[in-house]
Amino acid sequence: MNVSKWDIFELELDGPDSGNPFLDVTFAATLSKGNRTVEVPGFYDGNGTYRLRYMPDDEGEWHWLTRSNAAALDGKTGTFTCTPAKPDAHGPVQVVHKYHFAHADGTPYFPFGTTCYAWTHQPLEMQAETLETLEKSGFNKIRMCVFPKDYPYNVNEPLHDVYQRDADGGIDFDRPNPDAFRHFEKQVRALMDLGIEADIIILHPYDRWGYADMTADQDCRYIAYLTARLAAFRNVWWSLANEYDFLLNTKPMHQWDRYFHVIEENDPHRHLKSIHNGDRTMNFDHRKPWVDHVCIQNAEVKRTNEWRDQYGKPLVNDELQYEGNVWQAWGCISAQELVHRFWTTVMRGGYAGHGETYTHPEDLLWWAKGGKLYGESWKRIAFLRSLIEEDVTKGLTPLTNEWMWDRVSAGEDEKVRYIYFGEHQPSIWAKGLPLEDGDYQLDLIDTWNMTVERLEKVPAPKVHPTRHGKVVRGLKPDAAFGVELPSRPYLALRIRDLRG
Amino acid sequence: MNVSKWDIFELELDGPDSGNPFLDVTFAATLSKGNRTVEVPGFYDGNGTYRLRYMPDDEGEWHWLTRSNAAALDGKTGTFTCTPAKPDAHGPVQVVHKYHFAHADGTPYFPFGTTCYAWTHQPLEMQAETLETLEKSGFNKIRMCVFPKDYPYNVNEPLHDVYQRDADGGIDFDRPNPDAFRHFEKQVRALMDLGIEADIIILHPYDRWGYADMTADQDCRYIAYLTARLAAFRNVWWSLANEYDFLLNTKPMHQWDRYFHVIEENDPHRHLKSIHNGDRTMNFDHRKPWVDHVCIQNAEVKRTNEWRDQYGKPLVNDELQYEGNVWQAWGCISAQELVHRFWTTVMRGGYAGHGETYTHPEDLLWWAKGGKLYGESWKRIAFLRSLIEEDVTKGLTPLTNEWMWDRVSAGEDEKVRYIYFGEHQPSIWAKGLPLEDGDYQLDLIDTWNMTVERLEKVPAPKVHPTRHGKVVRGLKPDAAFGVELPSRPYLALRIRDLRG
Repeated sequence: MNVSKWDIFELELDGPDSGNPFLDVTFAATLSKGNRTVEVPGFYDGNGTYRLRYMPDDEGEWHWLTRSNAAALDGKTGTFTCTPAKPDAHGPVQVVHKYHFAHADGTPYFPFGTTCYAWTHQPLEMQAETLETLEKSGFNKIRMCVFPKDYPYNVNEPLHDVYQRDADGGIDFDRPNPDAFRHFEKQVRALMDLGIEADIIILHPYDRWGYADMTADQDCRYIAYLTARLAAFRNVWWSLANEYDFLLNTKPMHQWDRYFHVIEENDPHRHLKSIHNGDRTMNFDHRKPWVDHVCIQNAEVKRTNEWRDQYGKPLVNDELQYEGNVWQAWGCISAQELVHRFWTTVMRGGYAGHGETYTHPEDLLWWAKGGKLYGESWKRIAFLRSLIEEDVTKGLTPLTNEWMWDRVSAGEDEKVRYIYFGEHQPSIWAKGLPLEDGDYQLDLIDTWNMTVERLEKVPAPKVHPTRHGKVVRGLKPDAAFGVELPSRPYLALRIRDLRG
Repeated sequence: MNVSKWDIFELELDGPDSGNPFLDVTFAATLSKGNRTVEVPGFYDGNGTYRLRYMPDDEGEWHWLTRSNAAALDGKTGTFTCTPAKPDAHGPVQVVHKYHFAHADGTPYFPFGTTCYAWTHQPLEMQAETLETLEKSGFNKIRMCVFPKDYPYNVNEPLHDVYQRDADGGIDFDRPNPDAFRHFEKQVRALMDLGIEADIIILHPYDRWGYADMTADQDCRYIAYLTARLAAFRNVWWSLANEYDFLLNTKPMHQWDRYFHVIEENDPHRHLKSIHNGDRTMNFDHRKPWVDHVCIQNAEVKRTNEWRDQYGKPLVNDELQYEGNVWQAWGCISAQELVHRFWTTVMRGGYAGHGETYTHPEDLLWWAKGGKLYGESWKRIAFLRSLIEEDVTKGLTPLTNEWMWDRVSAGEDEKVRYIYFGEHQPSIWAKGLPLEDGDYQLDLIDTWNMTVERLEKVPAPKVHPTRHGKVVRGLKPDAAFGVELPSRPYLALRIRDLRG
């Protein structure tokens, strides 16, 4: 049997189906290649079927050996061969260069994500439409919930119960519904085929079914089950919760580290893990070693570089408010403002998440249900992504210090630097341009009209002391050259270093 | 002799002109009305002339009695009658209602100021042009320096030296130049006649003449001299320094309280006093009792209500960056952004200051030299002022708490409430509208196009729980009604309470 690298090896065995196999039957395997061994949890998929999945990360022959408290599942063994990765398979995304991401094969990954919380719970035709929209959208990550969502503009019943109903019609929180998980996995795979990372939200507070009220033990079993089912999908990210702090009434603070540990124990692939706050004063302590990157929601995007410094990890601002026109203020910023917040975030060394919340006669809002995009920001976000992917190799490092005070945003990589002016509209600029002349390409980017236009060097503007004692602030007097700019907002400057 | 209330009584006496009268001669008077006495400093005006000015604040007969170490100036006495105030004279501006301002006669004063730092040092024709522009601009306060300014776009020599030259052509910092002060006073009076407050910047760091390097004793004598000359002008505010922290290399921190005390000692009228920072982390401790209101510069205007709370005093943000297109980032924000920052500041219970910095072939920038306004923000600021003066009596109290998180800005006075949406563009709104129906007038304000349009009540949008446990966040379920809004940014809602 052959499995290409970063694809899924799946083992299927028949076992006991009496009692509650979800609680009663243990099932796992040791995967090995040479002296290396990996512990992989299996899971019960209903109807007496047990499965175990593994994403091989190394070419060659792998052995597997099962263990279980059920004889039918214990001591089974076999092999498979891991063949070279398919061209589009770059492996799971990992943290690199402290503040950035790349796939396991080294391909840079710059997240430009969107949010469709409950898209997998909508009618199937709408889910197909969501995938079609995503394919053309340019987004390469999506935030999505396992559980259905009960929230304004999102009150319909889900396609599947995530746990099984008992004889009285109540939900049995000790019996996951394999149909629901199989469907969820199908859509994670569909995203994988589109090259889109699935940022899977494990817990959330928008609930009327009781999922938010499961016990701590039930939560841990759920997380272990979900992890066993999904960790072999290379495009998975774990978002332990959306707005975790709005769940503290039923899941107190001390439980959350344990939840992270359950993921760690059950995910042999160590997918990215984070957790997302509701109140802006309630950021989780993302410095903990089991949190891989910072996930927050905060509209004060000019603080991006401060947050990055505070946590020392990649920063993803997954809700800097949404483009739309609903009455909730988090869901009615203009397209231009959202594009502005994306640019500001990215130029300050972070990453941002999109959402769209335009009112719809049937309450079909992208941010909740997927479907169609009606707005204007997504195109500009795709444009920004294309620019970044064209030049950046590691990820942007923000230029801070006096830049902070001026509130212009700027970032640089090895051979490129961007200066994003935002609400500023200078007619000439030299700050941050090279101190010595050389072979630089200068381009003007219109972030809204999505144009790139070559600029010529002009003499740097003359400087004059700004304080008694001949202090010149804000521009090194030896800036080699400047550029003339049209005096209008939302422009950026790109400086390509063409030397050597 | 008659002097109308809040106009200037001026006493002129001849005295010694040998030696250095600025240092050698003391001159003051006791003004009295009945049992009330006021100590008033006089000043030397050159050529053997001594003057003393007083702004009577109470109708009736006043007596004066001089004292001096020079016989010619000592023990002189006389009377004048304070007659009713002229129709346009409302008295000096004071702090009222903790966070706001009013004239001494109770007329509300809402500052909508601008900045022309060195306008009184420009050629006289340009100064006349500045006054013409101010007259039509709608600004009711201006920040202006006593000393000339040496700064980018502001390198010309001043009309007058503020201190006299000695025989070698150097400046003698023990001899003020009466010509310079007389001219400055003339322009303060011209502003008074236009109903514009003069926010006089006493010290600043942009200097090549040596004014920033005077000794502490010279500084104190200068402040006393300036105060004696100008305190009788009812439209005076004292801004002890612009960007005081950039002067700390020659005027260390411990000197600044003393400077405030010198103003207090010499100003019988207790004009408003504040001081303005450069670095945003270097706000002066405005809680000190000799600071009447907070004066800062900070572009993070959504924090206005936080700063107000921190200091417990009126908040004037006198530089939230300027409309223009110079290369300095503080001087190139768009007109729309500056208008947005004004609205945000005012809706959060603060006040803001305007400046304009468009490049000019002869370096005639409004913010530095006055002259003409070229921009678009000043008209919208005048429109905002007219709206506030139409309805507000005390001053706006910000609506905070959850509003903060949503980043919509709202403020209310006794019979009016405003909700400014800024970058938000809801299609329907009910939050902050009355909980019970009644006689309310609802208006849509377009802050950029300067239009006001009546809105009709519609049913409030339906609400739905946002968290498990049926918590509804963001809108009280019993909002009596809502309004429909066009989905575009930079709008505000005005709710007038017409009940009783």
